[in-house]
Amino acid sequence: MEVKARAPGKIILSGEHAVVHGSTAVAASIDLSTYATLRFPAHSDNDGLLRLELKDIGLEFSWPVVRIKEALSGIDVPNPSTPTSCPAEAIKSLAILVEELNIPEAKIGIAAGVMAFLWLYSSIQGFKPATVIISSELPLGSGLGSSAALCVAFSGALLAYSDCASLDFSHQGWLNFGESELDLLNKWAFEGEKIIHGRPSGIDNTVSTYGNMIKFRSGNLTRLKSNMPLKMLITNTNVGRNTKALVAGVSERTLNHPDAMASVFNAVDSISGELATIIQSEAPDEISVTEKEAKIEELMEMNQGLLQCMGVSHASIETVLRTTLKYKLASKLTGAGGGGCVLTLLPTLLSAIVVDKVTAELESCGFHCVTAAIGGQGVQVCFGGSS
Amino acid sequence: MEVKARAPGKIILSGEHAVVHGSTAVAASIDLSTYATLRFPAHSDNDGLLRLELKDIGLEFSWPVVRIKEALSGIDVPNPSTPTSCPAEAIKSLAILVEELNIPEAKIGIAAGVMAFLWLYSSIQGFKPATVIISSELPLGSGLGSSAALCVAFSGALLAYSDCASLDFSHQGWLNFGESELDLLNKWAFEGEKIIHGRPSGIDNTVSTYGNMIKFRSGNLTRLKSNMPLKMLITNTNVGRNTKALVAGVSERTLNHPDAMASVFNAVDSISGELATIIQSEAPDEISVTEKEAKIEELMEMNQGLLQCMGVSHASIETVLRTTLKYKLASKLTGAGGGGCVLTLLPTLLSAIVVDKVTAELESCGFHCVTAAIGGQGVQVCFGGSS
Repeated sequence: MEVKARAPGKIILSGEHAVVHGSTAVAASIDLSTYATLRFPAHSDNDGLLRLELKDIGLEFSWPVVRIKEALSGIDVPNPSTPTSCPAEAIKSLAILVEELNIPEAKIGIAAGVMAFLWLYSSIQGFKPATVIISSELPLGSGLGSSAALCVAFSGALLAYSDCASLDFSHQGWLNFGESELDLLNKWAFEGEKIIHGRPSGIDNTVSTYGNMIKFRSGNLTRLKSNMPLKMLITNTNVGRNTKALVAGVSERTLNHPDAMASVFNAVDSISGELATIIQSEAPDEISVTEKEAKIEELMEMNQGLLQCMGVSHASIETVLRTTLKYKLASKLTGAGGGGCVLTLLPTLLSAIVVDKVTAELESCGFHCVTAAIGGQGVQVCFGGSS
Repeated sequence: MEVKARAPGKIILSGEHAVVHGSTAVAASIDLSTYATLRFPAHSDNDGLLRLELKDIGLEFSWPVVRIKEALSGIDVPNPSTPTSCPAEAIKSLAILVEELNIPEAKIGIAAGVMAFLWLYSSIQGFKPATVIISSELPLGSGLGSSAALCVAFSGALLAYSDCASLDFSHQGWLNFGESELDLLNKWAFEGEKIIHGRPSGIDNTVSTYGNMIKFRSGNLTRLKSNMPLKMLITNTNVGRNTKALVAGVSERTLNHPDAMASVFNAVDSISGELATIIQSEAPDEISVTEKEAKIEELMEMNQGLLQCMGVSHASIETVLRTTLKYKLASKLTGAGGGGCVLTLLPTLLSAIVVDKVTAELESCGFHCVTAAIGGQGVQVCFGGSS
């Protein structure tokens, strides 16, 4: 018995940082995913172990399920239909389990993800032996929502074989969850994100679950239906950032210059509003795709200027901006800034030769580029391991 | 008989472009000047010619004064005490005089300046033979107010020998005009600027006349008294710009995104207000110079981000920003953008070695750097040609 779930990463199209100060942000899924394969052993192969293989980083862990059960004894482990936050005492017990793994220092960032896995697995599947294999097209910690995609993929694979989902096991190829199943899955993924991030916004897991785009303001998420295909070049500067320090820097600047920064956040709010309107616009005749793309480019350039005003740009980001500007392409940082990833809109009519050229030039600077379609499918599953 | 006037150039510290849309701008004089020497011939050397020598660009013109008088015949030439706009028919006549000079195509930009000179000369000094020699430390057309400094230097030299000024001819060294003399001089310089630019804001000639700094909003100029010395590295990218096209681009963006841009202009207005407050602050003990400089740097970075949001930056400007950022120095474009000049604050405690290094690196990119003190003297004159 095997199921594979895939969950997309996300980009912030507009409004990062300003969203913390009350502005609207727009986020979208990308067609780069994290994959979670859940395999239950045949009765004869049951060795009583829960295995977790992290293919991309070459780590493999296993626990006797009795060991996990023991660690969580005395804790009210929820059932699959009631997503519940991992209580403090469970966090402690799971932390001990993970400590015992002796994860190499360089890869210690994955520890919280393993804890999230253990909580989601125990809550949704109980204490059955199984093997879960993770692989991902998303670079870790670069602002593309890799941790949320991980939690959504976990939740997708785990719920697919639970009583809470009614999926057609005989279906060939990728399959969508029903709406209420997605709602449940999203809540579980959010509980996983909380173990990893403490106080996540919920944007990343929501985008990864439902796909497409969402508008986010003051804690309220609104799903958007995009009516235009969008393609972005995503350039990973490979410069690590300290998201907390960047967020704190913007807050400090806001304290120092309250009036100016309030106006800056208002400007970002207007930009996100315009962007959502353009993306949802159903009138393909009234405004051509090219015109829409030109507007989005202008809004991206404006948002980038405002992010520079907030002080979250970085020399590496500026290098990407300058390089893409040479090809008359508009770019903006996405996520926390200070390095991380930069988006460049690839207009529909742009020739593949230009994309190749700009990619080559960016990669010659030591950056890593990938082309992604924006606003596609959310989480999906596939039974039998055929895909 | 000889008098030399010197008139400083200017920089925009904050608010360029936004000022067109109602925000406050702050401008300041720099210690780079244009010099105008006015020499009346001894009676025996009177050849009936008015000569204009433009030393920096290697051009020299002369007209029989009777030819100028003839060209302006029928036109009500004002007297020195009543600054008057050059009437359309006089513009036509002066244009013909200037056309006859056959100014080389590459230097045709100076033609309007020559017309302004002829109008100011005739109005203030009538039709006397004389020689006027111009030299300047200000690059032409790079946004440092070279044309206004030219008009102010002309007006200063011409008014010094008029009945409208009562200066001590025996004074050695540079001499200041009185306040009411400066007001008159500024008005004349503005009339010259109108011949050159059509509809100048009046910022440039006002800064050049009075020196120090001014705050400008919706046509109202307020003189500021700076209470801190400021030094800037001014980097000329040597990239020519089309100011009108840049201004039009910002207006178009404002039409396309009215809400976002209104917020951007509000942010700039707040920044200019803060800057004026810091500069005028008389409490050296409350906030140290270093803290003030750090605040100004932050405001410069914010303003630059907002200018990028308006779409008036340029690859050459970004190169300057990136280069100075490596040395932890804050920069912003000054003036119209799209090339032109970039300001970098040189904090009081910055070592000369760093200044040399950053200058060398910028000049290796093909830029031209000059260090300038900000907010110094306005127009001054010196009799006898001793200085």
